[in-house]
Amino acid sequence: MLDRVRAAYDRIAAVDRPEIWIDLRPRADAEAEAVALDARLAAGERLPLAGRLLAVKGNIDVAGLPTTAGCPSYAYRPDGDAPAVARLRAVGALVLGTTNLDQFATGLVGTRSPYGPVRNAVDPTRVSGGSSSGSAVAVALGIADLALGTDTAGSGRVPAAFNGVVGVKPTRGLIPTDGVVPACASLDCVTVFARTLPEAETALAHLTTPVTRPLPPLPQRTPGPWRIAIPRPGQLGPLDEGWAQAYEAAVARVSAAGAELRTLDLTPFTEAAAMLYEGAFVAERYSAVGAFVDRSLTAGARDLDPTVAAIISGARDIPAHRLYTDQARLAALRARALEELADADALLLPTTPGHPTLAEVAADPLGANARLGRFTNSTNLFDLAAVAVPADEVRGLPFGVMLIGPAFTEDLLTRVARLLRPPAYVAVVGAHLTGQPLNPQLRALGAHLTRTTTTAPLYRLHALPTTPPKPGLVHVGETGGAPIECEIWTLPPESLAHLLTTLPRPMTLGRIHLSDGTTTPGFLCEPDALPNTRDITPYGGWRAYLNAG
Amino acid sequence: MLDRVRAAYDRIAAVDRPEIWIDLRPRADAEAEAVALDARLAAGERLPLAGRLLAVKGNIDVAGLPTTAGCPSYAYRPDGDAPAVARLRAVGALVLGTTNLDQFATGLVGTRSPYGPVRNAVDPTRVSGGSSSGSAVAVALGIADLALGTDTAGSGRVPAAFNGVVGVKPTRGLIPTDGVVPACASLDCVTVFARTLPEAETALAHLTTPVTRPLPPLPQRTPGPWRIAIPRPGQLGPLDEGWAQAYEAAVARVSAAGAELRTLDLTPFTEAAAMLYEGAFVAERYSAVGAFVDRSLTAGARDLDPTVAAIISGARDIPAHRLYTDQARLAALRARALEELADADALLLPTTPGHPTLAEVAADPLGANARLGRFTNSTNLFDLAAVAVPADEVRGLPFGVMLIGPAFTEDLLTRVARLLRPPAYVAVVGAHLTGQPLNPQLRALGAHLTRTTTTAPLYRLHALPTTPPKPGLVHVGETGGAPIECEIWTLPPESLAHLLTTLPRPMTLGRIHLSDGTTTPGFLCEPDALPNTRDITPYGGWRAYLNAG
Repeated sequence: MLDRVRAAYDRIAAVDRPEIWIDLRPRADAEAEAVALDARLAAGERLPLAGRLLAVKGNIDVAGLPTTAGCPSYAYRPDGDAPAVARLRAVGALVLGTTNLDQFATGLVGTRSPYGPVRNAVDPTRVSGGSSSGSAVAVALGIADLALGTDTAGSGRVPAAFNGVVGVKPTRGLIPTDGVVPACASLDCVTVFARTLPEAETALAHLTTPVTRPLPPLPQRTPGPWRIAIPRPGQLGPLDEGWAQAYEAAVARVSAAGAELRTLDLTPFTEAAAMLYEGAFVAERYSAVGAFVDRSLTAGARDLDPTVAAIISGARDIPAHRLYTDQARLAALRARALEELADADALLLPTTPGHPTLAEVAADPLGANARLGRFTNSTNLFDLAAVAVPADEVRGLPFGVMLIGPAFTEDLLTRVARLLRPPAYVAVVGAHLTGQPLNPQLRALGAHLTRTTTTAPLYRLHALPTTPPKPGLVHVGETGGAPIECEIWTLPPESLAHLLTTLPRPMTLGRIHLSDGTTTPGFLCEPDALPNTRDITPYGGWRAYLNAG
Repeated sequence: MLDRVRAAYDRIAAVDRPEIWIDLRPRADAEAEAVALDARLAAGERLPLAGRLLAVKGNIDVAGLPTTAGCPSYAYRPDGDAPAVARLRAVGALVLGTTNLDQFATGLVGTRSPYGPVRNAVDPTRVSGGSSSGSAVAVALGIADLALGTDTAGSGRVPAAFNGVVGVKPTRGLIPTDGVVPACASLDCVTVFARTLPEAETALAHLTTPVTRPLPPLPQRTPGPWRIAIPRPGQLGPLDEGWAQAYEAAVARVSAAGAELRTLDLTPFTEAAAMLYEGAFVAERYSAVGAFVDRSLTAGARDLDPTVAAIISGARDIPAHRLYTDQARLAALRARALEELADADALLLPTTPGHPTLAEVAADPLGANARLGRFTNSTNLFDLAAVAVPADEVRGLPFGVMLIGPAFTEDLLTRVARLLRPPAYVAVVGAHLTGQPLNPQLRALGAHLTRTTTTAPLYRLHALPTTPPKPGLVHVGETGGAPIECEIWTLPPESLAHLLTTLPRPMTLGRIHLSDGTTTPGFLCEPDALPNTRDITPYGGWRAYLNAG
């Protein structure tokens, strides 16, 4: 653990992103806690999250650090850890500090903070997304392993999408929100960021136990293939360049993995989303911190974010009768939405419609923010669960999608999210070719032949004295190289890992350049296997060589 | 598809295991169906199981082939496919033929058949396990991708364990048993064999839809880490050599993956298991095929398996009052068992206590068989679900474990079974070392440092002109080799696949020999990267070289 903590602080220094943190724990404190955890492990204590470093959004209580909610003058010293933090600490997670956020968790951009705008992990000219900005970036940059966020309108999902990490937004009430500065108390959820789904699931398991109130029984899922809903054509609205194609690719991947698709009417979702800030519900933010904001404005406080202050203060005079009207309208929209979802396990959507730059948000703070919540805002209003996962890259930036399902279907949503993982490929040139002795190994790993092609004319092929006989493919470059016949097999990623894990010397796996200009992982060999072997390149491939023999 | 079918028939010829099949379809028929499927796919039809070859246990109806139940004189020509077969065919699976079984699905050994004993896929001197013997071996040998079995006492799980494949035994009634020759009609389940869990899950999804009757609501699982039950010490009874250790290792792996363990009293499970053949329940087998067996015995038929015939015929005179007594006793045992399971998501057990040779079973047909069902027999009597998965190898043979849970928890059991997958390892020698520029990549993949060590003294290290600078490790053998510092990182298998998939030339991954005599996947490089680079072997490692610079 001590090594891990040291590496994290080195990394914090190396990435030079001070805006991630509101209060980073002193390195010596964290190292001392790591030593203590190591001792407890050595004494046989069961600490399943030992070794995991945790970042906590600045609106969640951490013992010993001030809770700021992104506003220094609002800060208080909590009595102890919020239950969400305490539960992860109890099983060995080590808190690095509290992270920056859109002030009072009001925003989806990650720029609305007196601690500075949080820059995107991949492209520092773009926003990190918010409001859980620092938490998502700390995980994306490999500093923390896990981070806690909160999500009212999408704050646990938008920054996951923008920084290429997993964000799980569980059902309202599943993780206690005690010790969390409320945004909209009836909608707020504590969320988890992690780099992989299994890590997020593990953290969620510890965050949800013990259960603080009895859970309602769930109707049993109708057995059969996953049923995934997608919006009717055109209902996604304008997306950033390349995002519609990336979304279509995600839909195709889920379908190829066996899920059945159905279309639904997205209108109730997007209409409810628009109500979150435009309607009377924003008054709940005033009831949380409005009195403080008003006092601060009167006193001329300089640490209020002007956009956040305007939103919260502006909610003071919303009349209660509008809330009644909005609640009735929301109930009707929710009924329609649940009806649309009734025939599906989950709704698959892009997490956001686009990813703005810091400059674009500065130029239009409200408009840019409002656009980001188009798909996320309605989730908590409808009491649904959601999981946001990286799906692809578009023009070098992460592209994320979200699976939304009924309350308490977190487990199911994470299972569906696995279908989005791209398959792996491997190029084979010898004993794994169709009909050759090791081909059954490949089939036994669940591999399927995708196509037969040749390498780029950059390789030579040698007959190795192995058992069974295998060829060794070797990159020699344009001078002296030739195209070599190969088969491209598609296989589950864990099967590719198994192939590698059981690979005997002198075979290796590396990057093969193919005749069509693409590249793929494939079989090569170690250099000391080549001397004194027969160069069989002129045959053009292993099968031609065997047939000639 | 045509290529896949051709490869399968070539493989069938190559493995020379004719006893797998009762009726293998003529190659021309299967090829013609493959061509037709290819045409339907080309026309845009959705066939999610296209490309998957299916083997069907010989007691399940397949249109065009006789249903024998392992007894030629019992054979009939079915009107069509059993629903289980029809459902997989409807989504593109291609049936290769019907497979051998313990006659009338009566046995767990795979030797009780006039079509010959089915030899184990890995060690032909050992039994395949039964009764779904041919189905499991066809999948294990890479001939079929999926196979249907049936399970009354363990017939869908024991052969999965013995041949190193996945066997899913769903809840009674979830897959229709129409078109299946009954063993014990009230207990029989159609089961799935596949090489990987995801493939089994996909097949199960198609097998369970549409639902033939409404499913009962399920109580919601209490959130939190998986809760895995294991028997009290000593309750497993005698196991084959090395199996107790392999089971303990599986328990440790589940625990290390975050599951909480609790012990339960296995007595109600093993007591009910003993009742399956010793008690009155065997009379249900007589009610299924007893009249046929008695007639055949009288007529001196030669195709009855003597052990099976004795079991079935011997059940004729069991008085009904014994059945009342046994049913009452079973109800009491079931209540105790469910109480023991109440605090757990699943019970983890070895699938069987041991793996006999063909000779051992021939010497003691009843005793060897009875021992095999110790852990599986009670599952269907208690109306539970189970998933059998490969967990390890012991003395070169597959060792399997089983997760047993309440009715309709198949999905949950497959999720828990994933925890049993061993993690992957990778040895790094350069830019991925702790503190080096690419180390965050490793952490971002969920990797954790396991230990720092050196390679065996068989390697040299070169400084490559890459960006960032990396070393190239190269195996040179005992002459001229030296130990090189390396770190061993543990990571999820899919992360190792991701590392390989994103690896740029000239880096490769191959097998590294370590100073302690073990080997692990790790970083090497392509031969053409080495000429004209600096040999930095004398520094003993990349960090020492950098520090010296």
